[in-house]
Order: sequence, then structure tokens, then C-alpha cells
Amino acid sequence: MANATSNGTTDRRTHSRDAGRHWRTAITQIEPNKILIRGYPVDELMGRLSFAEAIYLTLIGELPTPAIGRMMSAVLVSSLDHGVTPPSTLAARNVATTHAPLRASVASGVLAFGPVHGGDITTCMKFLDAGLALVRQGEPLDKAARTIVSQCFDSNEIPPGFGHRFHTRDPRAARLFQMALELELEGEHVRMIRSVERFLEARPEHAQSPLPVNVDGAIAAVSGDLGFDYELGNALFLIARVPGLIAHAHEEQAREKPMRQIDPKDHVYDGPRERRLPETRK
Amino acid sequence: MANATSNGTTDRRTHSRDAGRHWRTAITQIEPNKILIRGYPVDELMGRLSFAEAIYLTLIGELPTPAIGRMMSAVLVSSLDHGVTPPSTLAARNVATTHAPLRASVASGVLAFGPVHGGDITTCMKFLDAGLALVRQGEPLDKAARTIVSQCFDSNEIPPGFGHRFHTRDPRAARLFQMALELELEGEHVRMIRSVERFLEARPEHAQSPLPVNVDGAIAAVSGDLGFDYELGNALFLIARVPGLIAHAHEEQAREKPMRQIDPKDHVYDGPRERRLPETRK
Amino acid sequence: MANATSNGTTDRRTHSRDAGRHWRTAITQIEPNKILIRGYPVDELMGRLSFAEAIYLTLIGELPTPAIGRMMSAVLVSSLDHGVTPPSTLAARNVATTHAPLRASVASGVLAFGPVHGGDITTCMKFLDAGLALVRQGEPLDKAARTIVSQCFDSNEIPPGFGHRFHTRDPRAARLFQMALELELEGEHVRMIRSVERFLEARPEHAQSPLPVNVDGAIAAVSGDLGFDYELGNALFLIARVPGLIAHAHEEQAREKPMRQIDPKDHVYDGPRERRLPETRK
Amino acid sequence: MANATSNGTTDRRTHSRDAGRHWRTAITQIEPNKILIRGYPVDELMGRLSFAEAIYLTLIGELPTPAIGRMMSAVLVSSLDHGVTPPSTLAARNVATTHAPLRASVASGVLAFGPVHGGDITTCMKFLDAGLALVRQGEPLDKAARTIVSQCFDSNEIPPGFGHRFHTRDPRAARLFQMALELELEGEHVRMIRSVERFLEARPEHAQSPLPVNVDGAIAAVSGDLGFDYELGNALFLIARVPGLIAHAHEEQAREKPMRQIDPKDHVYDGPRERRLPETRK
Repeated sequence: MANATSNGTTDRRTHSRDAGRHWRTAITQIEPNKILIRGYPVDELMGRLSFAEAIYLTLIGELPTPAIGRMMSAVLVSSLDHGVTPPSTLAARNVATTHAPLRASVASGVLAFGPVHGGDITTCMKFLDAGLALVRQGEPLDKAARTIVSQCFDSNEIPPGFGHRFHTRDPRAARLFQMALELELEGEHVRMIRSVERFLEARPEHAQSPLPVNVDGAIAAVSGDLGFDYELGNALFLIARVPGLIAHAHEEQAREKPMRQIDPKDHVYDGPRERRLPETRK
Repeated sequence: MANATSNGTTDRRTHSRDAGRHWRTAITQIEPNKILIRGYPVDELMGRLSFAEAIYLTLIGELPTPAIGRMMSAVLVSSLDHGVTPPSTLAARNVATTHAPLRASVASGVLAFGPVHGGDITTCMKFLDAGLALVRQGEPLDKAARTIVSQCFDSNEIPPGFGHRFHTRDPRAARLFQMALELELEGEHVRMIRSVERFLEARPEHAQSPLPVNVDGAIAAVSGDLGFDYELGNALFLIARVPGLIAHAHEEQAREKPMRQIDPKDHVYDGPRERRLPETRK
Repeated sequence: MANATSNGTTDRRTHSRDAGRHWRTAITQIEPNKILIRGYPVDELMGRLSFAEAIYLTLIGELPTPAIGRMMSAVLVSSLDHGVTPPSTLAARNVATTHAPLRASVASGVLAFGPVHGGDITTCMKFLDAGLALVRQGEPLDKAARTIVSQCFDSNEIPPGFGHRFHTRDPRAARLFQMALELELEGEHVRMIRSVERFLEARPEHAQSPLPVNVDGAIAAVSGDLGFDYELGNALFLIARVPGLIAHAHEEQAREKPMRQIDPKDHVYDGPRERRLPETRK
Repeated sequence: MANATSNGTTDRRTHSRDAGRHWRTAITQIEPNKILIRGYPVDELMGRLSFAEAIYLTLIGELPTPAIGRMMSAVLVSSLDHGVTPPSTLAARNVATTHAPLRASVASGVLAFGPVHGGDITTCMKFLDAGLALVRQGEPLDKAARTIVSQCFDSNEIPPGFGHRFHTRDPRAARLFQMALELELEGEHVRMIRSVERFLEARPEHAQSPLPVNVDGAIAAVSGDLGFDYELGNALFLIARVPGLIAHAHEEQAREKPMRQIDPKDHVYDGPRERRLPETRK
């Protein structure tokens, strides 16, 4: 059967006979002086939904509960920025140093969220679902966790969502799990990743070469429990990191000479010292 | 021998002697098991700041007041999506139809926020500042508004932040001005744009060819009053629209055949009918 | 204190002790007033190598023979443009209509060379190599061709490099095979794809739904015989199409109003009528 | 009801009545089994035009003379690559290290051809045209050259097309001027830039801080004489550099570990030693 070929012509003729052949979208409806996102007037959403809640509505199609809204905010805040060393930040800064517009820096940074950088979320969601499939076939949780980890090790791979270049205990992952518990949003994906975590910590080689759960793993588990598709797991990281890319591109153009050679190791932090939120924000 | 000419080597030696030669960043500090954004531990921000508040912190460097936090959310929600017809959405969908990854669609969409699409915010901020400079030189507000509008018309241009392809009264702009008033965040930029608005409405040709203030104009005025740099005005639109681009790229791949020819006019909306927020969310 | 953990500092010290720790590149050497591409002074290449020959040198590392140089030109010319309907061209035009710079249009178009558009070359190179592996195990050429085609059909896929939306006989593929023959560059990849072609033409359903070899298939076979890596097969298409993307972005900005809605089906061609090269160019 | 306001419907109806309302393109005509670029069958161009000649045809619309074809090749070869230190190359490598596909690296690199990197060609074409406008008003060539240089210095800018980070005498510029002379393609733009060059070399400060004409300046002058639009001047650089970006992205993935931190100064060249073209290629 042909790849598209004469279809084109056929499609076209059918269109004029059948209004039902128009292509369809279920996201936003535009009429004069009216913009409805998933059915809600956008001006009614403004001031009533947080940005994170409205992102959930846009991606999933329904309003989040308040608990899910708070979890969405936490997921997005967790991945806002990770300093100057990620390749995505360096790609954005290398574009910014040529005095390109902000959007070119952002596009360049986004393109660096490749399979081995911030792309772990989708892979980890699939990894957890493989374990949950075993549980549904009757395997106990801890045995299923062991099985999927062994499969990774057998093919010489680190379980997705575990390990970090800098951190032995990722503070963002711990906080997401704590919030899932407090907000009563913990589901089977979080239970599965925590079971994998316990198994990895029990390995004899844990002391020398730990494989802590990382923020990608925590987002994968949490967003799996919220019902996100695989692809949209990666989308959450991407949305979260855009403001960070912008802050770096803007700082690069504001503080540095154009066309400089950016050495990722040769920098110092000169921003505010470590500080705590005021009591009123806690 | 290193490739980068002798300069490279000289620079490098100087570095080890002179800590002052490192380049500097004030955004995020990374230490093992610790991530500080503008000085605050990211895990402390999670669950305590909304995503919009944390974006403000990342871009501006300080915590927003609660009123500014609510305004940031409203600005970002206002620009989440505008249906399938903007060129940015079509660029993202044309990439998605080739089964490219989500990030390629987003990058492509972001690149379409060109000077005449979503780039109006920076231009409008400069336009308002030109009026405010006249006010500071002693000109009354309404006379300054008239002057800057006349300058536009004289060079055959529509005042930036005014006019819309679809809307004669942009509901998003109206809502932003209402919120600025209620949150007591109205400042000189909002006063200037409202003065321009009144002047344009008083023109005899207003009835046939109205030039209503649009959402870009409202964001420009509001973010000018919040103290944003020109470049960061455009950044707010860009951050806001990324989730919309993702929703469209995801829908394209989920609902349509690959490699289709996307006619922007030939579509119907088949999502939820118009609906209102539940009373509990108001 | 440097931001990049203590590792950074340790690495750095090691560098000054151990030249072997520098990273390496074998493409271009820069010295004051001297640029050597793969060892050759670029100013010596200028005027002596064609652009296509110099591209081969840059990618492969050695000078092509004159025959390979002519084949490189033909491969690159074959894919220069395919009109306004490919999604890559539409992505580029949708960016151009926002008056973004040329490079943003090109980036956007390049991102649309997704897995199902212009990405067939790598897949087809792997497909042919699977057949050649069977031949090396002793299977006759025509039996190997049948085996790999059947594997595609069994998993409901069209053999990569075959079938076209518009063409039942791709004139570019025919010309590339003819040149491979004349230039004595025909090798095992071309022989394998021609064997697949014969098998597909002999199917009873060939008359109603032909699966002609397309230009991607021909480039895959030819560049496989020239010794290109899988990834660089796709690179040839990408290099070839950039001038086409530029022509479209430039035409869009020169001939059309900004922010127009681009319907891919609703266009007419108004360029020069069909013409032939002058005798002197043949 | 279609989403795109009633305009959409009206437009559409008019189309079927009025062929003149279709949008137009003059680049490529596609018919079944036929592809005409600027009127010429692409399979007739293959093997008969060099890639550089076919690029000229695609961009300009007519066949180049053989001399112009040779000059196009030289211009494109001149800018193929400049080693690992340009920000565009680093942006491409930072994307490649995340194991993103080749096209994402290329897009990212292309976005770094910002206003201060490879964007000089358009600016320099305008600079030379400003001088030529003075000549047309009766000013002698050398006086016009002095005037436009002084205007740059007065606003604290280096004349576009002059000066280089690494080279005090750009070998690519010298070779392009030599070829323009030999091929009898030297026109008013080359004469103007050489007059500027002589004026800059006669400055007393020339010995300590020379401002040699660079390859961007030479391309600007040569392509101005060939009749290229301003925007297409930049396009030539962009087309030329894509193969270099690909070579770097491919080398990065072939030789280095993923997710490495790329220090632009910390590299060595380990490719072929300096070598000369064989006599047969001269």
C-alpha cells in the first residue's frame, strides 16, 4: 500500500463532500473576543488557577484537584535550573554569546534535552510500568522491582531514574516523595520506584557506588501516578527548565562580552548566600 | 600543542594565579546534595512557592510579594494558547507530523515568536517608556500618549500592543488591567497604556477600524510596572506558550497520520463545550 | 570556590600534568593566519575543489576521487528542493512569516527532517546491510532481497527507500543509479537495492500499488557504496536541503504579507516554464 | 463551524471562484515523476551542475556562468569550518553530547550564527553600499571609503568585515580577491572594500592593532558584485558551515563520552599533519 501518494487527491475531493473530514483539535477554541482553553474562558482562568494548574488543564484537558495542582507546582519548581554545567545551559549560553535573540537560545537549550539529558523521565516511566505489569501478573512488589533492575544490570545499564553526576542523595526527589505522601497522591508508580530504591540500597556495593533515586525518577513516578502519558513526562521537565535557560541567556548577554569561549568548569557563583524562606512563606 | 593559539595557554596560567578571572553567575549554586536557586534551597521552594512565583525568583533574583505572585500567574495563564492558527503552533505541528521528538516541535515553535508574533511585548515596553520619558520632561500624560501614537502613525505603523487579527476587545487585556487595579499593582506603564487606549478610542475612525489594546500590550504595561527588563517581557510570553506548543505537538502525533499537509483553515474544534469554573475555584 | 564540585579542580590540576587528558579533534587545525581542514590549507582548497568534494573531505577526512566528487555533487543536487508541501518547508515558511531571521527558519526546517521525512536514508542503509549480511552468510542476492522485504511486510511496514507520495518512478533515483554505473561506483549496496526493486516490481499487486525505489533509497545505496556511516547518510540529505529551505524562507518574506496562514494545498507555481540546459552544459 | 472565524470561510469560497487568489511560488514545480527547479528537471541538473552552481540556481533563479560557478564553490569552501572554538560549533557539540539526533545539533549550531558571529556579511554589504552611494553622488572612491570608516569609528565600531580574533591576515579573504581578479568578477563592491583596506592599513596604529579584511568582508564584497541580496549574503555562510557543524557533531558522538563538559580551550588537534593537494588537483 502506498505511503500517501494519490490519497492527497482523494482526500481533497472527499473534503468538499463531507464536513466531517476537517481535521480536529480539542485544545483551544477561538471566537471573536473569546478564547476557551479546554472549554474554559481564559480570562476566567486568570487569577483563579495557578500557572501550574492551568498547565495541567492544557495538557490533560480537565481541572486538577487542589492536591494535584500543588504537586504540579512542586514538580515544575524542582527542575527550574541546575546551574551552568548542563549541556542544555551551555548550548543556550553559546547561542546567547553571539547576541542572538532570547528565543534562539531557548530553542538551542531545549534541543539539548537529548536522550541522555532530561530524557530519563519517559524511559523511567516505561521501566516502572514494566515492573507494574509483573505485579499485575501476580509477582510481589519487591520481586518485580528486583527483576526489572536485574534486566538493566544484565544489559550493562543503570536503572533509569537512578544515579546522579553530582548528588548522592537528590534533595528534589526526597521532597517530591514527601509531598506525594502528604498530599495522598502516592500510587503504584511511587511504590514501585521506592521498592527499587530499597533494593539498590541493600546491594553490597551501595557504600562505594550508590545509585540514589534522582529527580527524573521521582518526576516519572509522580507523574505516572497522576496519569500522564510517557511523552508528557518529558514535557514537564522541558516546561520547567525554560525559565532557567532564559535566566542564563539573559545573564550571559548582560554580564559577559560577546563571542567569548565558555569554559563550563571555570566559573564562580557570586549570587546571594544561602538563605531561608521567611516564616510567612512556610 | 593546543589548538586555541597561545592566548589560550596564557589565559589558563593567569587563571590559577587569579581567582578574579573566573567568569561569574548569580543564578544557581550547585553543591553535592544541595541546589540553591538565587540562594534558596530548591527543595524548600517546592510546595511553598507556586511555579509562577519561582519563575519570578529565577528571572529577577528576589521573592515576589503575594500580589506580584498572583499577577505573574495571571500573565502566564493569559498566553498559554491561542488555538491552531498562530504560525508558531503551525511550525510546531509541521515538525510533529514528521514524528520528531517533542523538544524539536517546541524549539521550532519558539523560533516562530518572531518580531511580528509575540515579539510585540519588548517593542511595546519601549513605546511606553518613550511616553514616560516625555512625562518626566513635564508633558501631561494624555499629551505624551498622543505624541507617541502620532509618531507611529506618521511612520505608517500601528502602535505596538494595539490591534488584533481576531479580537476587537481582547478579554485577556481587560482581565490583566482589572487585576492590576485590584492587586494595587497599577503603575505608570499601565496608566500610560490606558491613556493611549483612550486616545485611540476617541479617533473618528475608531468605529470602523478599532485598535483595541491586546494581550501583548497589557503584558508589556504590567511587566514594565513589575520592573522587568525589555528582553524579559518577551520571555514571559515565551514561557507561557511552551505548554500550549506541547499540547498541540502531542495532539498532532496522537490524533493525525504522519506527514500530513496541515491546512490551518481547515479544522474544527471538537473539545469540551464552553464551561465555567466550579464555585469553589472562584 | 568554584561551583563545579571539587572534581573540577582535581581534573584541572591533572590537565597541566598530563597532555593526554586534553580532548581531541581531527577536523580542523587553526593557527594564526592558517586554517587547515583535514590537513589541507583551506585557501589551497578554494578554487581547486568543488564544494561537494570539499564536503566529502570534511566529513570523511580524505580527498574524493574525481568520480566520487561527481557522485557527491549529484547526490547533493538531487535533494536541493521538493516544492512547498514537505513539512520541513512549511515549518521554515511558518517561521519566516513572523519575520524571524533566516537562520531561525533554517533551524526550524531542519528539525522537521524527522524519522518519517528525509530520515529514511539511515534506515534504508541498515535495511540493505541486513541483506548484505545474509549474502555474506552464503545466501544468493535475490533470495536475500526477498528475505528482508518479507520481514518488512510481515511487520506491516513498507521497505525503507521505497514508495513515494507523488512519484511512481522517482527520476532522481534513476539518474543516481545511471551515474553510479557510468562512474563505475556501483557496489554491493546498489546491487542489493536493485535486487529489492526487481522483486517488488514482480509482485502481482505491483500494477495497482507500485513501490518504486525513491531518492532516499538511491542515496542510501550510493552512499553505502561510498563508505559513509549510517548517520552521515542522513547528513547528506540535510546538507542538500538547506539551500532549498533558504530559498523558501527568502521567497516567503519577499513575496507574502507577514503572519499569513499558510495552506500547503492552496498554491500555484509561477516561475519559469520547463526548460533544458543549454548544449554547452551537457 | 470552522474555528478560524468567518473570514476563513469567506476566503475559501473566493478561492474556488478566483484562481488569482492562490499564493504563488517560483522555486520548484512538482508533478508526478517530475521535479523542476527554477524550470530545469532536477535529474538533468544532476551530474551536469556542481552543487555550488545548483545552489546559485536555486537562490537566484538562473544558471550561473562557469566563472560565477567557480566563485560560488570558492565562497562556500572558504567557510566550511573554523575548528572547535566558534560558539556555533560549541552549541552543536553541547547538543550532540546529549545523544540528540544530528539535525538537533545542526539546528542549534545554525541558531548561533547570531549578529556578532557570521552575521557580518549582511552588515558589511550594507556598509559597502553606503560607500558606493557616495561614489554615485560624485565622491572619489578613496574619499568615500574614508567617510564610511570614519562613521564607524565615530560610533565606536569596527568597520564590518574587518578584524579577526585569530588572524592578522585572513588567507581566505586574500584567496577570494585573487580569484575575483582572475575570473574577471571584480566589481564595485570589491573595489570599495579594497579601498577601505588600504585606508585602514595606512593608519598609524595599524602596526600595533591591525584591522585586516576578514572572510566575511570578502564574501560580502564578492557576493555583492554577484548581485546577491543582503539576506542571501548571510545565507552563503550558513550553507557553507552546515557540513562543518555535522562533522563536529558526528565526531563528538563517535569519540567522546556522553554528557561531558566541553571546555573550548582544552583540546588538541590529532588529525592529519599539514599536507598539499596532489599536483593533479592544482
